[in-house]
Amino acid sequence: MDADLRTLRERLAEISDIYRSMLVLGWDQRVTMPPLGTPARAEALATLGRIAHEKFAADELGALLERLRPHEESLEYDSDDASLIRVARHDWEKNKRVPPELRAEMLRAGAQGHHTWAEARKNDDFASFLPVLERNLELKKRYVECFEWDDSPYTPLLDDYEPFMKTTEVAEVFDTIKPALSDLVREAPEVDSSFLEEPYPAELQRAFGERILATVGFERGAWRLDPTVHPFCTSFSNRDVRLTTRYDKAGFHSLWSTMHEAGHGLYAHGIASSLERTPLANSPSFGLNESQSRTWENLVGRSRPFWTHWYEPLQSTFPEQLGDVDLDTFVAAINKVEPGLIRVAADETTYSLHIILRFVLERRLIERTLEPKDVREAWSEGMRELLGVEVPNDADGVLQDVHWSGGGIGYFPTYALGNVISLQIWSVVREAIRDLDAQMEAGELEPLSAWLRDNLYSLGRKLTPKETIERLTGSPTIDPQPYLAYLREKLSAHVA
Amino acid sequence: MDADLRTLRERLAEISDIYRSMLVLGWDQRVTMPPLGTPARAEALATLGRIAHEKFAADELGALLERLRPHEESLEYDSDDASLIRVARHDWEKNKRVPPELRAEMLRAGAQGHHTWAEARKNDDFASFLPVLERNLELKKRYVECFEWDDSPYTPLLDDYEPFMKTTEVAEVFDTIKPALSDLVREAPEVDSSFLEEPYPAELQRAFGERILATVGFERGAWRLDPTVHPFCTSFSNRDVRLTTRYDKAGFHSLWSTMHEAGHGLYAHGIASSLERTPLANSPSFGLNESQSRTWENLVGRSRPFWTHWYEPLQSTFPEQLGDVDLDTFVAAINKVEPGLIRVAADETTYSLHIILRFVLERRLIERTLEPKDVREAWSEGMRELLGVEVPNDADGVLQDVHWSGGGIGYFPTYALGNVISLQIWSVVREAIRDLDAQMEAGELEPLSAWLRDNLYSLGRKLTPKETIERLTGSPTIDPQPYLAYLREKLSAHVA
Repeated sequence: MDADLRTLRERLAEISDIYRSMLVLGWDQRVTMPPLGTPARAEALATLGRIAHEKFAADELGALLERLRPHEESLEYDSDDASLIRVARHDWEKNKRVPPELRAEMLRAGAQGHHTWAEARKNDDFASFLPVLERNLELKKRYVECFEWDDSPYTPLLDDYEPFMKTTEVAEVFDTIKPALSDLVREAPEVDSSFLEEPYPAELQRAFGERILATVGFERGAWRLDPTVHPFCTSFSNRDVRLTTRYDKAGFHSLWSTMHEAGHGLYAHGIASSLERTPLANSPSFGLNESQSRTWENLVGRSRPFWTHWYEPLQSTFPEQLGDVDLDTFVAAINKVEPGLIRVAADETTYSLHIILRFVLERRLIERTLEPKDVREAWSEGMRELLGVEVPNDADGVLQDVHWSGGGIGYFPTYALGNVISLQIWSVVREAIRDLDAQMEAGELEPLSAWLRDNLYSLGRKLTPKETIERLTGSPTIDPQPYLAYLREKLSAHVA
Repeated sequence: MDADLRTLRERLAEISDIYRSMLVLGWDQRVTMPPLGTPARAEALATLGRIAHEKFAADELGALLERLRPHEESLEYDSDDASLIRVARHDWEKNKRVPPELRAEMLRAGAQGHHTWAEARKNDDFASFLPVLERNLELKKRYVECFEWDDSPYTPLLDDYEPFMKTTEVAEVFDTIKPALSDLVREAPEVDSSFLEEPYPAELQRAFGERILATVGFERGAWRLDPTVHPFCTSFSNRDVRLTTRYDKAGFHSLWSTMHEAGHGLYAHGIASSLERTPLANSPSFGLNESQSRTWENLVGRSRPFWTHWYEPLQSTFPEQLGDVDLDTFVAAINKVEPGLIRVAADETTYSLHIILRFVLERRLIERTLEPKDVREAWSEGMRELLGVEVPNDADGVLQDVHWSGGGIGYFPTYALGNVISLQIWSVVREAIRDLDAQMEAGELEPLSAWLRDNLYSLGRKLTPKETIERLTGSPTIDPQPYLAYLREKLSAHVA
């Protein structure tokens, strides 16, 4: 049994090393790679992905996991070893269903698609992107056929990002929040935020962002921040965390992108070292991970207590732009609710409406009630209906997001689930850290960071998403009410 | 046969993808990785290296290569297919001798050693580096035992960098150049180069370097240049070439480091696309590769014709530092011969003496006539004897180079061989491009670059080093005379 467990750990460590290497290749592709490096990178990713997949679907590994079942059952459910065997078996069973060549082809197409998408967006040229979308959808169709589902063929795709969740469950949450958000958007007051749209030198934005990052609980020498077109976060171990952000010189927005990615980064950074080089060195779901990026971006980064501490330093950094703007005006501006075209620029209230649009379109594409070529039209209609805005071009419409180019279908809903979950967890945090506001007003973020690490991040992927939520909140349900209550309270505070 | 060849190409492409991925991990480690990422990176490299090694030593691959022997013999020797089968068999036979676990351990130790070395150098602390050196030597001892050799156990190590060359052959070349170089150093005139040691803003150095790089024959979008501590060049395909350089604000030296790495980069960039994803997508040896970095750094970058074109732009970029310095004075200064402590800062004449020291020490370490702990002492003695300088500390002595930390023993001699070979090839280039000087005086470097690409770089690793040299020069011999003649002529020009 000891030998089996050791062998299992070796096999999984090897697979983890390959996946982490693929993440390095992905980071490099998006942050530093010269554009003509694309074809070789696509092949490299396909090869590594196929090898990892073959290893993680090997019969020998399945037999090993079967032999370890009695050992698993003799241990505490949430012990490292029991969790490792259980989660590895789940992953093995999923991988077993997918032919390695299909996995390789999905990776290859994804890497190739990224470059085509970037060009298409630059040139506002949907036609050149359409074959990429069609190809990825065709591959997803083959992928879906590897699995069983009872509500929608979208469910197996969703499962890659939000394990164990059904399409109909997501739809239920979205059906609850959609009318409530629409009401909130309609009731939103006019707010002046013009001072956020002046020139803000990128270097100063960067320096200010790094000053804040130094306070959120990262260990020195374990992370870095780089500029990129489409901000993201990845990690190659809990001590090699890569944040990226985007600096728009024509306005002050980068900080929330930076804090968003820092939230993802703190999750990766907080995963227990004992879980390194195993499938447990991850978060339980993209939604839970997103709940933390949203926590740091919004619940901390747009809160009055946070800015009570940080607004003076910000004013000193940008005296021309903010010297005459008082704290209340600033906090109101960074919390302004206003329908817009771009998801990543959306406020907390309209944001989930952008996601609902994408969820509906993806589901229709996968359920084959929408043709890929018609997705532009459907996008425009959806934006009109959900947000009341007209889409002037595809670059600011259907081409704005990176996800579909890389085959990331099923990913979007997790952003809105993250919003919802973030408030469920935040309620618990506020109970646990009674003087949280006072700490933030004093610029002390490390206690918050440590609490989240100890109670959430360190668990890694030992528990399922629902088990993790239950461990924190006492209930496994994804409940939108705290999220809606938070938005309503915020809105009424500004109205008052 | 067609099926066998296709299978061979698939297997080799897969292996090549893994090796290229390892190069991405290596680039990231040296250019961007946060220091605490080291342990995970070491594991990832060890895992990928072991997997690639297992695949490249598989019995099945050996059988495939054997079956393809008749096909190989039916083809032209230097055809792509015959070369592929021949070179792959050579690599397979070498790999077959090495246990995968030893390969993995060498990679792991190398990646771990890099960080320890960087800290040791920073703190001038040889004692903390000694265990790394001892560990790497121990692993090399085991590696050497996998091979046969008749002159020195150093030969199998050398063979990884300079295939088919013996330690005694290197010693012979070095025995020829050592006294000649010593004479040249003794006769070197006093030259004022103080204006190169003033403050030169790093950003301007970078911009000037990039201006020159735009003229040397790289395709746009196929390369990038980044700053690093220890400049190097790597490539992930012939269209993803990574140059690195170092900017010293207190002087103007970065350009030659940039051009040096550009020479390596042009080699990688010029390899025929038909050789991509095969073991042929490389240079025949490190010495041949180095001959081209030396060509671009020195034969171009320190030549009068080159600066006839570029000196005015340089003066306009740095008017305070160079406004009063005329072209002759500048060219004399950048060609000044002066013994110093640091290899990478050495001039063309003293440079090979630094290499001879390292070769002698490495050979003694491997032949066990020198203990690792005594290498500091031996370094100081060698510097005194060869260059007449006293070593004040280990950071500027035995700790100055990255190579030993990563297990790169057997690498150094190729630098001096590169110097020697560069002049053998340069003689041919001058025959072939009659108006080379006039072209350089006009700032036209693309014809030179194209000639080298078509006649050398594009061949990749199809021929052995000696075959490659013979194809270019008519003789397979590594002949130091053109190198020595070049240095003598240069020196007399300056004396006159």
